[in-house]
Amino acid sequence: MPSDGSSNKRVMRWGILAPGGIAETFVGDLQLDPATRGVTDVAHRVVAVGSASGQKKADDFVKRMYTTKEQVEEAKAIRTYGSYDELVRDADVEIMYIASPQSHHYQQIKLCLNAGKHVLCEKPITINAEQIRKLSALSKAKNLFFMEARWTKFMDIFREIVKLVHEDKILGHVYRVHSDFGQELPEDHRLYFPELGGGGLLDCGIYPLTYLTALLWDHPDNQRARPRVTGSMRISPKFKVDEDSTGVLQFDKINATGILTVNMRVDLHRPAFHTIIQGDKGDILVHGTHTSRPTAYSIVLKGQKPVTKEPHIPGHGFFWEADECARCIVAGKLESPVVSHEESIFAMEIMDEIRKQGGLQFPEQIERAD
Amino acid sequence: MPSDGSSNKRVMRWGILAPGGIAETFVGDLQLDPATRGVTDVAHRVVAVGSASGQKKADDFVKRMYTTKEQVEEAKAIRTYGSYDELVRDADVEIMYIASPQSHHYQQIKLCLNAGKHVLCEKPITINAEQIRKLSALSKAKNLFFMEARWTKFMDIFREIVKLVHEDKILGHVYRVHSDFGQELPEDHRLYFPELGGGGLLDCGIYPLTYLTALLWDHPDNQRARPRVTGSMRISPKFKVDEDSTGVLQFDKINATGILTVNMRVDLHRPAFHTIIQGDKGDILVHGTHTSRPTAYSIVLKGQKPVTKEPHIPGHGFFWEADECARCIVAGKLESPVVSHEESIFAMEIMDEIRKQGGLQFPEQIERAD
Repeated sequence: MPSDGSSNKRVMRWGILAPGGIAETFVGDLQLDPATRGVTDVAHRVVAVGSASGQKKADDFVKRMYTTKEQVEEAKAIRTYGSYDELVRDADVEIMYIASPQSHHYQQIKLCLNAGKHVLCEKPITINAEQIRKLSALSKAKNLFFMEARWTKFMDIFREIVKLVHEDKILGHVYRVHSDFGQELPEDHRLYFPELGGGGLLDCGIYPLTYLTALLWDHPDNQRARPRVTGSMRISPKFKVDEDSTGVLQFDKINATGILTVNMRVDLHRPAFHTIIQGDKGDILVHGTHTSRPTAYSIVLKGQKPVTKEPHIPGHGFFWEADECARCIVAGKLESPVVSHEESIFAMEIMDEIRKQGGLQFPEQIERAD
Repeated sequence: MPSDGSSNKRVMRWGILAPGGIAETFVGDLQLDPATRGVTDVAHRVVAVGSASGQKKADDFVKRMYTTKEQVEEAKAIRTYGSYDELVRDADVEIMYIASPQSHHYQQIKLCLNAGKHVLCEKPITINAEQIRKLSALSKAKNLFFMEARWTKFMDIFREIVKLVHEDKILGHVYRVHSDFGQELPEDHRLYFPELGGGGLLDCGIYPLTYLTALLWDHPDNQRARPRVTGSMRISPKFKVDEDSTGVLQFDKINATGILTVNMRVDLHRPAFHTIIQGDKGDILVHGTHTSRPTAYSIVLKGQKPVTKEPHIPGHGFFWEADECARCIVAGKLESPVVSHEESIFAMEIMDEIRKQGGLQFPEQIERAD
């Protein structure tokens, strides 16, 4: 954890809502010295943690995450709460990190924004597009920063790939992008529960969709023109959520097709490349066991020897999105251009359409936007 | 070419209709000695060749294909015709091999069957399901053998893969099969012409569909139960055929998904595996630059070192389907159980559905079945 004494460093004060597994990864990344990733303008500090399952769970989280002598000292200043209502009233918290399942995002983001907190919320941002549209309007009305935690987009490797395709145009005309997220999940995993907004599409599909969105929807020649969308789902008769989903996005304006596939029963392609970007000059294959966390990519140009690049990632990689939040807030921005409200709304609209065609409806209490 | 003198060998007498590129490959395979593939019961001889573009084209074909001293001698017995009407009247021809574009199959198969010839016809067998249903009925009425030249299904490597999945069950429960056929085709290729039944789906898509059909529709637990089908197409505004198509087949009875993708603008995945079969115990990856001609496969079981098998293929691989035709005819069968009429009809029904959803209609003169 960097010292707060640095005169030029703006230290963002975070509140953690729902201290589970994903919050552990996030806070672990916040604890890394920003200098290890070449960042000197911002830093991060957790000042409060709240659990809906009682204060002890929040205390345990802090104990678990702050273990070195220096961390234990730092943790003494962290306030813990047994309810979110108390957490959001903590005046010292600037920005809330929401790490709950998607079923709870809509209500919790509203709670945070209404309490005057900036918000970074885990993906998928909501259950449907209506919810995110309302939240976007609320954040603007409240003059608060609000972003979906689509961390992959902030990774150097992801930005490199997009630059190679859009600016350097090394693949020529990109005709097809296929991005897949397959993972074998045990049957007690939260994604098997419809009341938590489970199923493969929303939770895992957001990453393949992130590739298609960045590469095709946001293609300089496409200018965010909307694709035609076709969706197919295989819904588990036992669990009532999608075990397998496919979305095909036809970008007629740029003569390109995006395919997203997701599966909760089988792991990623072995050997694992999860995304293939195909142009008339060659392909880029993106590697990694999780589509959310690309670790390397291969450039395979026609008639040339493949080149594989594996950039160093100094941690899990959540810190980049945290840095972005801090910088946007310092600059008075209400949203990031990297994961804009428009992009989050677009993604949820695509998800809505695939679910509509696939026949997946979540329980009314998590679909509503009131 | 094997000697016809062998007493136990039944030599099938072929007529070649439309002597173009694909017929060259087929006849090249017929010329190989069956002993090189361990076959001793049947052999093949071309006895007639007919071209609709004039007898000279048929003559040129024979000249081109029969070049060694022995072959030149053999070719003297081959009759050539400048029309298909004459060709099918050749009393010595037992079975016609139809190598024309799919737009012409329906009328030509009818011509051959009505002339009393058995038929092996290139894939896709027709333009739509109505046409193949009528042809199946006609072949039965005429008591003639009739088969779609879906040669891939007769290859040892293909049969090995199906056996590993269905009988040996080495992948456990198969949850997903994705088969892709991408090839970059020049803009003067016949597949850019709608009046020839062009586009990626019918011509290239039949191979990915062959994998899904063999592995899922014909899965012992599925018993040919019909899948739900979703189709998406990107139709070239310039050429009015599909450059990119996707079909998703949901086999709810066996909790499995089949995905077929096809693209006329980009080559297959580099490094090229075109088909991935994913089960809860691992994957099989099928390799080859063309989905039609698998050359190797890798078995990637969880926690085990991948094993790659590359069976020897003693030629291009068309001879196995020719052997099957010969054996069926000798046995008095009207269809082969490997590529049954039911399977060809099923495939065309899937194609019809994908085209309907994708919005691709061919000119009336090739869609009709009268």
